[in-house]
Amino acid sequence: MPSYTAPVNDIQFVLHALLKASAQDIPGYDELEADFTAAVLEEAGKIAGNVLAPLNAVGDAEGCVLENGVVRTPSGFKDAFEQMKQGGWTALDCDPEYGGQGMPVLLGTAVGELFSGANQAFTMYQGLTHGAYSAIHAHGSDAQKAKWLPKMVSCDWTGTMNLTEPHCGTDLGLMRTKAVLQEDGSYRISGQKIFISAGDHDMSENVVHLVLAKIPGGPDGIKGVSLFIVPKFLVDDEGNIGARNGVSVGKLEEKMGIHGNSTCVMNYDEAEGYLLGQEHKGMRAMFTMMNEARLGVAMQGMAQAEAAYQNAVIYAKDRLQGRAVTGAENPDGPADPLIVHPDIRRNLLDQKSFIEGARAFMLWGAYLLDKSHRSGDAEAEGLISLLTPVLKGFLTDKGLDMTVQAQQVYGGHGYIEEWGMSQFVRDARITQIYEGANGVQALDLVGRKLAADGGKHVMGFFELVKGFIKENEGDEALKKDFLEPLKSASKDLQAAGMFFMQNGMKNPNAALAGSYDFMHLFGHVCLGLMWAQMAKAATEALASGEGDASFYETKLATGRYYMARQLPATKMHLARIESGAAPVMDLAAEAF
Amino acid sequence: MPSYTAPVNDIQFVLHALLKASAQDIPGYDELEADFTAAVLEEAGKIAGNVLAPLNAVGDAEGCVLENGVVRTPSGFKDAFEQMKQGGWTALDCDPEYGGQGMPVLLGTAVGELFSGANQAFTMYQGLTHGAYSAIHAHGSDAQKAKWLPKMVSCDWTGTMNLTEPHCGTDLGLMRTKAVLQEDGSYRISGQKIFISAGDHDMSENVVHLVLAKIPGGPDGIKGVSLFIVPKFLVDDEGNIGARNGVSVGKLEEKMGIHGNSTCVMNYDEAEGYLLGQEHKGMRAMFTMMNEARLGVAMQGMAQAEAAYQNAVIYAKDRLQGRAVTGAENPDGPADPLIVHPDIRRNLLDQKSFIEGARAFMLWGAYLLDKSHRSGDAEAEGLISLLTPVLKGFLTDKGLDMTVQAQQVYGGHGYIEEWGMSQFVRDARITQIYEGANGVQALDLVGRKLAADGGKHVMGFFELVKGFIKENEGDEALKKDFLEPLKSASKDLQAAGMFFMQNGMKNPNAALAGSYDFMHLFGHVCLGLMWAQMAKAATEALASGEGDASFYETKLATGRYYMARQLPATKMHLARIESGAAPVMDLAAEAF
Repeated sequence: MPSYTAPVNDIQFVLHALLKASAQDIPGYDELEADFTAAVLEEAGKIAGNVLAPLNAVGDAEGCVLENGVVRTPSGFKDAFEQMKQGGWTALDCDPEYGGQGMPVLLGTAVGELFSGANQAFTMYQGLTHGAYSAIHAHGSDAQKAKWLPKMVSCDWTGTMNLTEPHCGTDLGLMRTKAVLQEDGSYRISGQKIFISAGDHDMSENVVHLVLAKIPGGPDGIKGVSLFIVPKFLVDDEGNIGARNGVSVGKLEEKMGIHGNSTCVMNYDEAEGYLLGQEHKGMRAMFTMMNEARLGVAMQGMAQAEAAYQNAVIYAKDRLQGRAVTGAENPDGPADPLIVHPDIRRNLLDQKSFIEGARAFMLWGAYLLDKSHRSGDAEAEGLISLLTPVLKGFLTDKGLDMTVQAQQVYGGHGYIEEWGMSQFVRDARITQIYEGANGVQALDLVGRKLAADGGKHVMGFFELVKGFIKENEGDEALKKDFLEPLKSASKDLQAAGMFFMQNGMKNPNAALAGSYDFMHLFGHVCLGLMWAQMAKAATEALASGEGDASFYETKLATGRYYMARQLPATKMHLARIESGAAPVMDLAAEAF
Repeated sequence: MPSYTAPVNDIQFVLHALLKASAQDIPGYDELEADFTAAVLEEAGKIAGNVLAPLNAVGDAEGCVLENGVVRTPSGFKDAFEQMKQGGWTALDCDPEYGGQGMPVLLGTAVGELFSGANQAFTMYQGLTHGAYSAIHAHGSDAQKAKWLPKMVSCDWTGTMNLTEPHCGTDLGLMRTKAVLQEDGSYRISGQKIFISAGDHDMSENVVHLVLAKIPGGPDGIKGVSLFIVPKFLVDDEGNIGARNGVSVGKLEEKMGIHGNSTCVMNYDEAEGYLLGQEHKGMRAMFTMMNEARLGVAMQGMAQAEAAYQNAVIYAKDRLQGRAVTGAENPDGPADPLIVHPDIRRNLLDQKSFIEGARAFMLWGAYLLDKSHRSGDAEAEGLISLLTPVLKGFLTDKGLDMTVQAQQVYGGHGYIEEWGMSQFVRDARITQIYEGANGVQALDLVGRKLAADGGKHVMGFFELVKGFIKENEGDEALKKDFLEPLKSASKDLQAAGMFFMQNGMKNPNAALAGSYDFMHLFGHVCLGLMWAQMAKAATEALASGEGDASFYETKLATGRYYMARQLPATKMHLARIESGAAPVMDLAAEAF
């Protein structure tokens, strides 16, 4: 069975050597001293490794079961959930006014990686609750907040997001679920929602569904969608749980992975619901949380890659097979460990260099979110809006690839469920799909974010890269191994943007045909930037003579690998983009 | 549930327009007239679509069950197997002397794609039998051939290959299974073998295991390995089935996919076995069939991609979501079909252009095998030996990627098992692992095949590419869209080979660190060559005015897509290769 060890040192490096968190002028960041975050991560790491990871395979094998309309979670989930609640982990980055601990998203994301890496299906129950919490926190009336949030912060009540219907996912304007206003100001919600993660289960007293629905008579399409709070059990004004509401589980889906999470078909049959935010402004309400939710999915993708990588390394050091081409390295044994073989190292370094770069990118994203929300920094908000589809699309696509590579290290054993490597692949796969399929992320990036505010934010990003390169090109080692490859990759990204500008006006397909490659090109440049910045931080740490020199040397070597062997992908993506619309649009639909 | 339609026209195009099969001077190829192969493919296609495809999901859901030492296959498998036997499909490319139909590997591979695409797990029972048949055919005594082959050709008895043991897969020199000579000339085999596909089941009267084992006192390591025939039931000289042999199923493995195939732990407890070929030459005996077996796995990878693609296209035309950016294309409907969106087309064209190129490459490989075996052409044998790891590694890696992309077209529905797209991914995944994990293919390519016979075969490949380009550069359209990209990609491949020559002598790690990228680079050049050749064939067909012009136009457009949007990957692989050994070898094992 796979194990999980919290990568505390790597996270600490990003929080403190890279982002210098506690020195940032953002409300709440002064609390993020290295000792404090280390203690939090160590504690969270214990739960992740000792409580959640052992339940990961259990959840996969048992799955959830629907019996007499009630969903039963896998053995051990309920106890583990209780431990999460008791430890206050569900409240970490929630508002203290409702019982939260008020920590920044940065720390919440860092801790979230540990829980999600150890057990994605389990951690989703709390993750969905946090999403619903954020929506009510942002758009609820004071009375709504007072009524729903405290129990959601504690996860006594969990939450869900209900968007998709059988005939529409991406295109929510086609939605059929109806909400009819009642005399008392509440609504009656009727319709069917599918793919509702954590839709029902046996770990909480109540489930608070956030449901998108149309109020009859409103505008057509997406502009007529409103958001409602629809609890499983009605709650009176004193907060007591009352009668069962008209919402039920129609079915549990059999999925490729995340079996431990209950993915429900939810049927609403004149269920009582309460408008959240304004009439017909449901999509806007959803969108305000989208950056955070998508960052969370990006985190899941990289977290599964990290978990899979850890186990691939253990196996590569343990399994004896063949001899090093340069002479036996384990001469007393029957063979050398796999890790002596160059191609196994290539495989592992693809993983390692991606994961550490992705973690830096993700935590930088969390920092930008905090800067935008806590300091009201419009530039940070613009930048994170631009980067969100890149984070979500690139980290989850590569996350899947890396779990596949980790599985490959095991040879045939990787294909056997007992070893657990298959689960990492199957669980990671969903991250490319939910919270906006990655093709939709690419469309959001190229069709919307790139040109937002006159292209200001992408220009800001290029300035940031250019500035960093200029500032540091005095360091010869940094220049050769990091800054020059970064400069070249960044030029590819600029050229791609230029191609879109020159061709996309005349023919939007010329830009959209390259959107997916642009998302990946952008992702590589971001990881290149992260690695260049981390290399600088590691170089400085080495020069200071403090800390563990071998840790920093490893960081530099891993970074050099990324720059030399991953970043060249930008040229390929640029070539694809520059081939334009014709190769993609030439064929008639019938010719496929 | 997914459907499957035999891509007869595409296969016919490769067999006749590209390979001009019936005009080739290879024994047996004169029978391969277009009408004949079309009739065979149509018939096979009916079985694939109507019999095997409907059982694919059944096999996945039910899996195999081990009860009282006996393996039960999924519902319907037994009847379907009977139909395959009755139709003579198991005998298609077997020796007529033993009841086969004597067809070339080329046609066997073309038909194999249909069966495997429709139901990989099912088709493996016959595929493994064919592998064991080939080994006995190549290395058995006349008596052995007479005794075992006829029943294996008819699949009344099926076969298996027993190589892997719990502690060794790639490194078979570590093998522990023993074979002790008896007075009657037979051996007693004892040991445990794992990952034995089709190891036991209820569809045949007998199972003929081919088992690698060591005869005590023989040479150490891989040079002391011999190959044995070990039947489940002993067979007397008249061919009657007798007593149960000392071989039993220890366990059925729970796998990520191919649930319909019984993957067994086989326990040999003084089982009676018969030496096949010479003592201690077991590996050589296995290797003679390896090119064909690996071509078969390459076929499985591309076949799963084809099956997944077909369903992705159906969904993309059917599912209404969003509007074309250039204006509604289905104005009377609530939304446009997915296929109007550039990124969906990009996704589908990645698949289509890979699959059709891969099919041509695979069938060219089968043609080279026939040329080598039937005409004794040493050049063809050298070339297919070189290309075999490329076929196996590249087609299965890309095959998996393409099933993932096909699944992505379905959005959330792709993740739900009911839709069947997950199964394509999970089944395809094994092809990267078995019959030599893809990292081992890359090692074989760079460590052995590249320099074989003084590099003669790789030089021959380059000459072939160069010759084709030179011959055809008078055609301006071909030159710009196909020959120039091919020339550039081929130069990248040559540069990579040169890098290995210049650096690999001093430091073999400099070559092996780039082996995986070289395999992919080589794969792209091969598909580039196939597309250039197919473009020429399509252009000629169009000029002739015969046949379906839109078919040929589509072929050209699909080829242009590959050249413009896939082939640029060669630059990235070359850059990775040229970064050499240091990035890969720098880190100490402890630093991972």
